[in-house]
Amino acid sequence: MKKPISSGFVIGFLGAGQLARMSAIQAFRYGIQVAVFSDRPEDEPVQFMTPHSYSGSFDDVESMLEFADQCDVITLENEFIDSKVLHQLQKRSKTPIWPSPDSFALIENKLIEKETFENAGIPVTPYALIHSEEDLIDFGSKNGWPFLLKSSKGGYDGYGNKTVRDKSGAIDAFEQLGGLKGHDILAEAFVDFTHELAVQVARNETGHVVYPCCETVQKNHICVAVKSPAPIPVDVQKKAQDLALQATEAIDGKGIFAFEFFLTTTGEILLNESAPRPHNSGHYTIEGCITSQFENHVRAVCGLPLGDAGLTKPAAVMINLLGTDLRPAAIENAESALSESNGHLHFYGKLHSKPGRKMAHYTLLGDDLNETYEKALTFTEGIRI
Amino acid sequence: MKKPISSGFVIGFLGAGQLARMSAIQAFRYGIQVAVFSDRPEDEPVQFMTPHSYSGSFDDVESMLEFADQCDVITLENEFIDSKVLHQLQKRSKTPIWPSPDSFALIENKLIEKETFENAGIPVTPYALIHSEEDLIDFGSKNGWPFLLKSSKGGYDGYGNKTVRDKSGAIDAFEQLGGLKGHDILAEAFVDFTHELAVQVARNETGHVVYPCCETVQKNHICVAVKSPAPIPVDVQKKAQDLALQATEAIDGKGIFAFEFFLTTTGEILLNESAPRPHNSGHYTIEGCITSQFENHVRAVCGLPLGDAGLTKPAAVMINLLGTDLRPAAIENAESALSESNGHLHFYGKLHSKPGRKMAHYTLLGDDLNETYEKALTFTEGIRI
Repeated sequence: MKKPISSGFVIGFLGAGQLARMSAIQAFRYGIQVAVFSDRPEDEPVQFMTPHSYSGSFDDVESMLEFADQCDVITLENEFIDSKVLHQLQKRSKTPIWPSPDSFALIENKLIEKETFENAGIPVTPYALIHSEEDLIDFGSKNGWPFLLKSSKGGYDGYGNKTVRDKSGAIDAFEQLGGLKGHDILAEAFVDFTHELAVQVARNETGHVVYPCCETVQKNHICVAVKSPAPIPVDVQKKAQDLALQATEAIDGKGIFAFEFFLTTTGEILLNESAPRPHNSGHYTIEGCITSQFENHVRAVCGLPLGDAGLTKPAAVMINLLGTDLRPAAIENAESALSESNGHLHFYGKLHSKPGRKMAHYTLLGDDLNETYEKALTFTEGIRI
Repeated sequence: MKKPISSGFVIGFLGAGQLARMSAIQAFRYGIQVAVFSDRPEDEPVQFMTPHSYSGSFDDVESMLEFADQCDVITLENEFIDSKVLHQLQKRSKTPIWPSPDSFALIENKLIEKETFENAGIPVTPYALIHSEEDLIDFGSKNGWPFLLKSSKGGYDGYGNKTVRDKSGAIDAFEQLGGLKGHDILAEAFVDFTHELAVQVARNETGHVVYPCCETVQKNHICVAVKSPAPIPVDVQKKAQDLALQATEAIDGKGIFAFEFFLTTTGEILLNESAPRPHNSGHYTIEGCITSQFENHVRAVCGLPLGDAGLTKPAAVMINLLGTDLRPAAIENAESALSESNGHLHFYGKLHSKPGRKMAHYTLLGDDLNETYEKALTFTEGIRI
């Protein structure tokens, strides 16, 4: 492979959303060029940041070859592609893909992911693969109602998830998620938790770094805020960080990874979900940590030494700014957020806003977590997008 | 003007070097799109960061119109363009240009610049416009030998400057700089100084922020390092900051400006040069200040509230990494620089390296200025580009 900090080096992103955008910004600081492959018809913001823009289907290796040939290394910004396709793309283009297709295969759907981490000795939320009506009833009897039904592949931000409260609801949801059409459907027990936690890990042949354990605040299955460090005892933070590193090693991960955990009412830490890419829970690291998840994403897949993941201030809070209106995107009433000394606004450049769409985020640093969180909420509450 | 943090907003850069690149990176964090106009034939790194790339001559308003029509606001990354051309471009395209052509006209060559600031009551280094052999001799008699001869327009990094030690040397240099062809040539007295200082100022209709007073370390007229804050008494720093703000106000500047001063052996602060754009002396602000000169460049020209220019750590040091070899650019031996927790490497992505060319820079933050400077030198001394 060409040296990563050299003229004409190109990193390729499969996927063209805000995660690719923010990683691309970090690639630029190293003079690295960016190519993107989008599977969507609309203009994506990262496509306005490069002349090397391709589109097509994630299933069509042929249509991805021209993109792959342009790249010195390829990475991903989502999980919607199949590991077999990645294998073929890597083989035919001879362009390395990180995380590797082998790592990716170990977590590419929710069932395999659970098995991989369970086999590695990492506690996961109770789950079962559902084939039939009986399976649904058995699961409810064993783990209690309500519980969750999830598509094994492709869900995010609550899409592809259904909460089921009784037998008839479960049967309906199973059908709606495509269970009758043969889609793999997973049941997952509801866990009584005190906190939802997340940890990012960057790892490559030069070593690894583990980010602080943060808390994610969810509303309607969408992350609305992140607090770092999580307001829990340090030894519990440390345990989550250890599990995140263990999980990264279990898939021999090279890249940036995020792990979401439940801290249960009985003090257990259960792995809920993983992501082989930068993650919304780590957006605060752009200013909140010495080296952001996006910079370490680039460093990791390029084989560069990894940067320090420590906090830059005692407290970091990130607020997701979701679309408020159906219209061309424009941020309004952000003056106080922008003027605040330790506040940092990021807009993703999406052309269209709609209620609930992730459009931007705001990070505020401070000395006290609760105070910083309250201030961040105040600064952002009037923002319209 | 369209709202700056909105879909499809485009900032245009006249000039496509590393300053445009680093400002573009900051524009991207606000989802702002970037267009560039280059007057050079070769591929410039920032052209790999946008699909909106134009080239032509800075003298040809016609050829810049398509670029200007694409932009919601235009800014500059160098001084090589004529204010009359900027006036015409703004008038014909109706795209606002910041800093304004009027501001630009007040500093567009070294003679006008000196007069502007002198008229505003700001002490400047002794100078004279040279028309003839007698003028040269008069200047030497009055201000002492050696002194400097400078092209009034277009010089940078020592190009366009000559040190003259006696009458015959002065006559030769006057001819070499184009004095006989009618180019305006300025004589400038040598100043006995203890420190070379620099201050950046961001200013627009929402207010202004003044960056710390830093020290620039020059070798062969090229800045090789910057130390911030400058190792001089706080009241002297403050005086330089006040003069920088006064100078920005004297040209009614909207944008980011840099001012270089001599601190003389007698304790005077003399303005040496100004730049209506981000400046090498402010590269350290990317990590060293809460809001970098590049981010405030974007905020200022877009009319957004300006960000805090305070230091993030007690000491910041920037080392310019100049090309070491004539070859395709590649950074080698940067592992220790990259691995250092508070070290931040930036590579500009230029395709070709040559000895002395500005290729990259390294910023190190710390608690003690001297120690941080020594460490930064150690980390960077083995780097080859």
